[in-house]
Amino acid sequence: MGRIHIKDIRGHIGQEVTLAGFVHTVRNQGNIVFLMLYDISGSVQVVITKDYLSIIKTAKNLSEESVVQVTGIAKTEAQSPGGIEIACRTLTILSAADPNTPIPVIGKQESEVELDKRLDWRWLDLRKPKNTLIFKVWTIMEQAFREYWIQNGYIEIHSPKFMSTPSETGAELFEVKYFDRKAYLAQSPQFYKQMAMAAGFEKVFEVGPVFRANPSFTSRHDTEFTGYDAEISFIESHQDVMTEEQNVIQYVLQKIKEKFGKEISMFYGRDLIVPSIPFPRVTMKQAKGILAKLNVPGEKDGDLSPGEERKLCEYIYEKQGHEFVFVTEYPVSARPFYHMRTEKDPTLTKSFDLLWNGLEITTGAQREHRYDILTLQAKEKGISLESIKFYLNFFKYGCPPHGGMGIGPSRMLMKIFNVSNVREVTYLYRGVKRLDP
Amino acid sequence: MGRIHIKDIRGHIGQEVTLAGFVHTVRNQGNIVFLMLYDISGSVQVVITKDYLSIIKTAKNLSEESVVQVTGIAKTEAQSPGGIEIACRTLTILSAADPNTPIPVIGKQESEVELDKRLDWRWLDLRKPKNTLIFKVWTIMEQAFREYWIQNGYIEIHSPKFMSTPSETGAELFEVKYFDRKAYLAQSPQFYKQMAMAAGFEKVFEVGPVFRANPSFTSRHDTEFTGYDAEISFIESHQDVMTEEQNVIQYVLQKIKEKFGKEISMFYGRDLIVPSIPFPRVTMKQAKGILAKLNVPGEKDGDLSPGEERKLCEYIYEKQGHEFVFVTEYPVSARPFYHMRTEKDPTLTKSFDLLWNGLEITTGAQREHRYDILTLQAKEKGISLESIKFYLNFFKYGCPPHGGMGIGPSRMLMKIFNVSNVREVTYLYRGVKRLDP
Repeated sequence: MGRIHIKDIRGHIGQEVTLAGFVHTVRNQGNIVFLMLYDISGSVQVVITKDYLSIIKTAKNLSEESVVQVTGIAKTEAQSPGGIEIACRTLTILSAADPNTPIPVIGKQESEVELDKRLDWRWLDLRKPKNTLIFKVWTIMEQAFREYWIQNGYIEIHSPKFMSTPSETGAELFEVKYFDRKAYLAQSPQFYKQMAMAAGFEKVFEVGPVFRANPSFTSRHDTEFTGYDAEISFIESHQDVMTEEQNVIQYVLQKIKEKFGKEISMFYGRDLIVPSIPFPRVTMKQAKGILAKLNVPGEKDGDLSPGEERKLCEYIYEKQGHEFVFVTEYPVSARPFYHMRTEKDPTLTKSFDLLWNGLEITTGAQREHRYDILTLQAKEKGISLESIKFYLNFFKYGCPPHGGMGIGPSRMLMKIFNVSNVREVTYLYRGVKRLDP
Repeated sequence: MGRIHIKDIRGHIGQEVTLAGFVHTVRNQGNIVFLMLYDISGSVQVVITKDYLSIIKTAKNLSEESVVQVTGIAKTEAQSPGGIEIACRTLTILSAADPNTPIPVIGKQESEVELDKRLDWRWLDLRKPKNTLIFKVWTIMEQAFREYWIQNGYIEIHSPKFMSTPSETGAELFEVKYFDRKAYLAQSPQFYKQMAMAAGFEKVFEVGPVFRANPSFTSRHDTEFTGYDAEISFIESHQDVMTEEQNVIQYVLQKIKEKFGKEISMFYGRDLIVPSIPFPRVTMKQAKGILAKLNVPGEKDGDLSPGEERKLCEYIYEKQGHEFVFVTEYPVSARPFYHMRTEKDPTLTKSFDLLWNGLEITTGAQREHRYDILTLQAKEKGISLESIKFYLNFFKYGCPPHGGMGIGPSRMLMKIFNVSNVREVTYLYRGVKRLDP
């Protein structure tokens, strides 16, 4: 249809242009009608004057949220929003909207609408440029991760989501009716990305959904979310994994800031900071020491509560001006059986979490790749060896030392936009009580 | 560890280098031992001479498939495979392999091993450079798709895999125990990518797993596979979707050929051809006419059997020298309710399949975005309106005309490598009888 985007009108002043998009508001002033037209790139005022009476008639009856195609002359106009307007010559309705929208969309009072109702009508909610921006940023964020990984020799895998056994802990697993038996949905690609190490792939990443039958209703949990996973071979320790992670995160945030820093600041008041390297690293023991000095009550032994995570980040930010901190060497009790233990203290693991402004966004570790030790560690945790036999086999016929991490992209987005609820940054949130739309 | 990749040794001739990888063969000649060392980038011969007796001793007892770190002097050596060898100075075993590997890996007789057994020990099977190549190509293929899409203004979405209702046909759905009720695994992101059109995203893509409870055992079906989906707004017809698809496929195959054309040819004997634009387009009616002339029996009315797809592609290749062909305007009976119908004949849809060398790799269409017509078409197909109410709602409050497609990346890989079984190009295949490893 020879259509151009609204953001490109400025290059066509004085010319006839064709636009298409949603009409978010119709202002009828009798002999003249103003439409606010939105497309993915921006918004512009369309003016229909009395020279086009039949169009005026159509426009007056046009329901807001309808989709139209407009041709008209692009003009600069000081009184218009953005300084540009379109003098309409043709108006075609591509899709007429039911005027009774269940939630307000743009330009109407929306502060009263509660989140749950917005999620019921998510596609109307997503029409707001502030919300669309989240997914534009997600697109660039994911592409930047991939660029970094692929430039650094990673291979992408798509591992299966169906598993035959309730592996790892067996907790929070979804069960699937699988022909004449049962299957389980993978809670992470952990085992399968380690399989790639045993296959000699050396460095892999995976992007895909992970499933957790978590019955909680917090603002940071969901039953299904996107995970970014990476695993690398021939490391010396978990320190190498952290170095790799800080590099990729710096690269990604640089890219996001370049492309969307201004809009993130405009819509969310968040000045995105590209973090310096290296990120601060503290052991769990050091972290607990800091928190004790600050008189922060600890909820769990050897792990950090959300409150502790916040306080620790505030402390690091105050002392070092850094939004990120790696917490390392979690005790064996707080980590899965496959985390490698430190040489100096067998009660500690070569593991880490990455916290960003008070929120855990990553868990990582060096993995135990020695078959005998791994088997012992599984037994110690009370795991049925039969249920993880396929996994233990990965380490029987040669497997490089390796480690990796899992990153939560929706948690990263919470911190990029400084929003407190994961539902806001999820395309379609899934929780205990929500499977629709 | 200051390690370099085997492919980079050539830049270090005369220097000491550190390598790490799998030892696929050990040749013990008494006073001298040869190891073939493999990493992700290639292979090299490591020579241990009698100057290093303790290393000779270690090497003689080394089980094949073990993972080692080697330091040594890089030398050119005419008699070595590849013309280079490493004069070993240190050898460290990082992971000793059980010598009784269940399937042969590299350099051993492997022609006798049946596919099913190879899949049981997939990580050993994937160590073969011929198999690893598939996933290197997948990585570049996916990145190329994304580059094209992102350069052209697409937004990436990650839509939920849990759905509340057995939508569309209800056939071949997996059922999940979801707390105190049931959920279903999405068979495609179809409805949710259309939701993005109603949200005004204009162009989206999604990469993710799709689930089909398909009880068949053919070489081209699985219960879970990766899907590439795209959807675009403000199209005139399905012809625009096909134009977009031929552009992205040309872009992707160009990238693959540049980077891996030589290796694909070497390992698979397939000379990858970058297709010219436009791809041939024939209507179903024309296709059936061609097949009738060729006396190919048609198995289904208004659809093509795998045999017909092969014969049609052979015909097009013979006549036009093109490996691809779009088949358009499938009858209503062969298509889902949401495909838009043609103006000239309401029994036909604005739909297409893309065939590549005899295999369907894509299904696409313009979608019906008009609420009333869509509702009628659903009724006509006997679909419960209650079960798709959430979907019909997407079209109530304004929705641009749009269309899209779903591409099967594993089917593309079958054609890139000219292999006949989808299991060969899947990281870990899932079928009726296979959930392991």
